[in-house]
Amino acid sequence: MKVGILGGTGPQGRGLGRRFAMAGHEVLLGSRDAARAQETAAGLAGAGRVTGVANADATDADVVVVAVPHEGHADLLTSLAGALEGKVVVDCVNPLGFDKQGPFPIEVADGSAAQEAQRILTGSTVVAAFHHVSAVLLDDPDVTDIPGDVLVLGEDREVVGRVIELAQSIPGARGVYAGRLRLARTVEAFTANLIAVNRRYKTHAGIAVTGLPAQDEA
Amino acid sequence: MKVGILGGTGPQGRGLGRRFAMAGHEVLLGSRDAARAQETAAGLAGAGRVTGVANADATDADVVVVAVPHEGHADLLTSLAGALEGKVVVDCVNPLGFDKQGPFPIEVADGSAAQEAQRILTGSTVVAAFHHVSAVLLDDPDVTDIPGDVLVLGEDREVVGRVIELAQSIPGARGVYAGRLRLARTVEAFTANLIAVNRRYKTHAGIAVTGLPAQDEA
Repeated sequence: MKVGILGGTGPQGRGLGRRFAMAGHEVLLGSRDAARAQETAAGLAGAGRVTGVANADATDADVVVVAVPHEGHADLLTSLAGALEGKVVVDCVNPLGFDKQGPFPIEVADGSAAQEAQRILTGSTVVAAFHHVSAVLLDDPDVTDIPGDVLVLGEDREVVGRVIELAQSIPGARGVYAGRLRLARTVEAFTANLIAVNRRYKTHAGIAVTGLPAQDEA
Repeated sequence: MKVGILGGTGPQGRGLGRRFAMAGHEVLLGSRDAARAQETAAGLAGAGRVTGVANADATDADVVVVAVPHEGHADLLTSLAGALEGKVVVDCVNPLGFDKQGPFPIEVADGSAAQEAQRILTGSTVVAAFHHVSAVLLDDPDVTDIPGDVLVLGEDREVVGRVIELAQSIPGARGVYAGRLRLARTVEAFTANLIAVNRRYKTHAGIAVTGLPAQDEA
């Protein structure tokens, strides 16, 4: 599969790019700054096929992952709405604020970053996924298996199934359907809880769903 | 430990009452209707020491679990604020609405049910926990081990530790600190995602945190 990543030079974008490349996908690593994307892509060359490009060129893919900070999210998607038409867009943006007590979810007028993306990208199918997999683990070439589940939320069952397959192409990861897009806010916000877990237990936590039937444990 | 349960005749309250009794705790199962509480308690007699009482009498315990529907939550706590003074109050209320697309989190003016409880119970220490353990599994006497983690949120580290211990007195369950009370909304709301998981996969799902250090895996 050809996977584009908007914001591919940030920790989550670069980590996902590494894993998708390791899984044999062709990765278009996008950035506002194409030169920086090329530099990051060069650093991932050992993982597989990764090309650094401008964000606009990273839309030339089967699936486009959005991994930018929430601040620039709406503006970037608005500028790329035409290029993303007809495509599957996977949003993994976590709208969080930070103060002296740590991270907290910030309000998004559309309910969640994923719903914001779907409102802007009227011609695309937006799915929310990859919020909780640790960027540190994703980007560590010594980590062979990514622990935990990738929660996948969306309206279109077939498209959700494709994103679950993309998640499961990453060794160790399991994709689990976790509700319609209107429940994405909770999954985005839960990243703040995981950061609290990380701080308390000095780890890189993820989450797993218990009790799934065996055929979905694959 | 002596554990009181407000709303002990509902599915979550009754299930938790069963597990706490199985773990050897003395359980005061409270209800608006003391006669109904006695009836439910009689049904749990095989599990251990369970007494059915009026909600007001269930406050005479070391830890008081609040397992009522969100509709009556604020009024009940307001009426019991005096009796709950100085106590540890564990809120497991999930403020959810339901429509034809399934469950969704509803807005709570205080941010979450747990924060609402803490605002009302100025003399108590409120901790949020036990939102995600399946009431069906808790209340099934044939289930010996409860899978998954109990996420525990609160401000007071010592009290959070006590509630983690209470959670871990239930065979199979692990208590995990998951942030301050201001992050409780996400944990409450995540119950809607778990219901979506249950519907899709025909199961009783829970969640587990991955990546915790071994000493916390106990």
